[in-house]
Order: sequence, then C-alpha cells, then structure tokens
Amino acid sequence: MHQAVAELAAERGYGAFTVGDVAARARVADTSIYRRWGSLEALSADVALTWLTESSPIPDTGNLRDDLRAYAAGVARDVSGPSGLAVLRLVIALAAAGEPGIAARDRFIAERGGQMRQMLDRAAARGEPTPSTLDIVDHVLAPLYVRVLFGLGPLTSEYADDLVDRLLRA
Amino acid sequence: MHQAVAELAAERGYGAFTVGDVAARARVADTSIYRRWGSLEALSADVALTWLTESSPIPDTGNLRDDLRAYAAGVARDVSGPSGLAVLRLVIALAAAGEPGIAARDRFIAERGGQMRQMLDRAAARGEPTPSTLDIVDHVLAPLYVRVLFGLGPLTSEYADDLVDRLLRA
Repeated sequence: MHQAVAELAAERGYGAFTVGDVAARARVADTSIYRRWGSLEALSADVALTWLTESSPIPDTGNLRDDLRAYAAGVARDVSGPSGLAVLRLVIALAAAGEPGIAARDRFIAERGGQMRQMLDRAAARGEPTPSTLDIVDHVLAPLYVRVLFGLGPLTSEYADDLVDRLLRA
Repeated sequence: MHQAVAELAAERGYGAFTVGDVAARARVADTSIYRRWGSLEALSADVALTWLTESSPIPDTGNLRDDLRAYAAGVARDVSGPSGLAVLRLVIALAAAGEPGIAARDRFIAERGGQMRQMLDRAAARGEPTPSTLDIVDHVLAPLYVRVLFGLGPLTSEYADDLVDRLLRA
C-alpha cells in the first residue's frame, strides 16, 4: 500500500489519485484501505512519515553540530530526489484539501518534531547550547525546502553545513 | 480573467481547474485565453505575479532595515490570508506539473527576484551592507512560507522583524 501511494504521488502528484487508484495498484479492496486508515489523507501522511523516518533517521553522533549537519545533509539529499520532493509536496498539499488533510499534516509535523526534540534533548543533557525545533525549521529546513520548491539551484552538502553553522552561531 | 483564476485557485486549489473553467467564469472563449497566454500555467503565473506586485510592492523607505521589515511584514500578512496562501501554493504547484509549469514558475521567480534586487541595489548605492537576494529568500521568505504551509503558528509582525534583524546581524 505504501509503495502504491508513493508511486502514484511521484507519477501524478497528490490530489490526482483516489483511494480506488491506490487499491487497484496494491491489488486490495477499497474497503480495506478505509478500514485501516479511514481516509486517503491519513494513508498519505502515514506513507510520507514512514518514508522519511526510514530514509532520514534522526542522527545521534554525540554532538549537536554533527547531528544537525548529518540531518541537514540527509534532508538536502532527500528533497533533491523525486521521492523526497513528492513527500514534501504531499505534506503541503494535505492541508490545501481542508480537513482531514490538515489533521493528517499536523500529525506528521508533530511526529517529526518529536524526533527532532529527542536530538535537542540529548544535546541539552550533554550541556550543549541548543536551538529550538522551530529555529531548525526556520533556518535549516525552510531554506532547503523553499530552494527546491522554487528551483533555486542544487542543494550541496556545503550549503547544508553553512545553514547549520549559521544557526549555531546565532 | 485574473479574478476568475484567483477565485478558482482559492476555491479549488491549483490543478483542480481547467482553461475551460476560467473561460466560463470570465465569460470569454477558451481560444482567447490560449491566444493571449498560451497555457493555463502562464496565465496562472501572470495572475500570481500581478496579485503579488499589487498587494506587496517592494518598499522604498530610504534604509534597508526598514525596507526589509516592511517587505517581510507584507509577505507575512499576505500569506496568512486565503489569496496569498493560494498564490504560494500555485507557484509551488506550477513546477509539479512539469513543463510549461516550470518555465512559468521560473519567470515568476526571476521577476520577483529582480524587484528585490532593486531594493538591494538602492541600499548598496547608499553604502549600506547588503545581503544577497538568496539570503533574503533563505532567512526571511522561507521561514514565513514554511511556517504557513506547515501550520506552525501565526506570523506576527514581531516575528517578521526578528527574521530581518537576524539576517542583518549575520
């Protein structure tokens, strides 16, 4: 089911396929999708989160700068590829459809935010100065996302490193 | 025509209406849209740019900090409303549809970038230290856009001011 959604999102974009399309591709009945996920939005958010957690696990290197650099480099690599870009567009599109897309998006954000917070809590426990999760969103994730969404050049690992260094200097 | 596109984008989201829908709402023939704009993508980018230029003109206060603060506050206000959010989603969605959407998006970005550059050129001519347009995208526009796209709280003018101050300190 996950693969079917990821393929359809990459091929057509979110909003351009239905539960019926997913069911046909995964060779299951529509009703089994509704029974397990309740809606296309909930299934899509689940797929996006699983994909992201597997492809970009939150790093644990022993110091925050290296954690953040590894994390930023992973995000830069992911969103530069077709699957990662499709996930990013999916999360954005979820909310455009109103409820229950907004609820699915918010669950996704809360889950991913919780993972980031674990990284920050470990740094704080080591006595390192730590930014907030919103600081990371604002000054590391947001530039990466917007550059790729607006086609503003390739995301190199040097650029991702610079974003992290700038955040930790601020 | 502009109003028809803006209404349809706000009501349904981009990708969920056709040239035929625009023509019907604006009470013109499909052919006159194709003759003038060539595609729905080009028309949409034109609408987005016109709306943005009118609602958020590039400020000219006499100093860069106030220019940027006025600009950031305007963007924060715009994307917090339904029309501005629809335009932001439209520019993002343009590229997801492949060509000619990508060309339309790039024209939009280039035009808006040129307007920002005028603001920076004026500051440089006054001898003020100036960031690049990409710095403004990365650290002022991107956080505003991503917070609203991901539903991460209201965009206050204090927050927009902080983004500008942080950029000018860096």
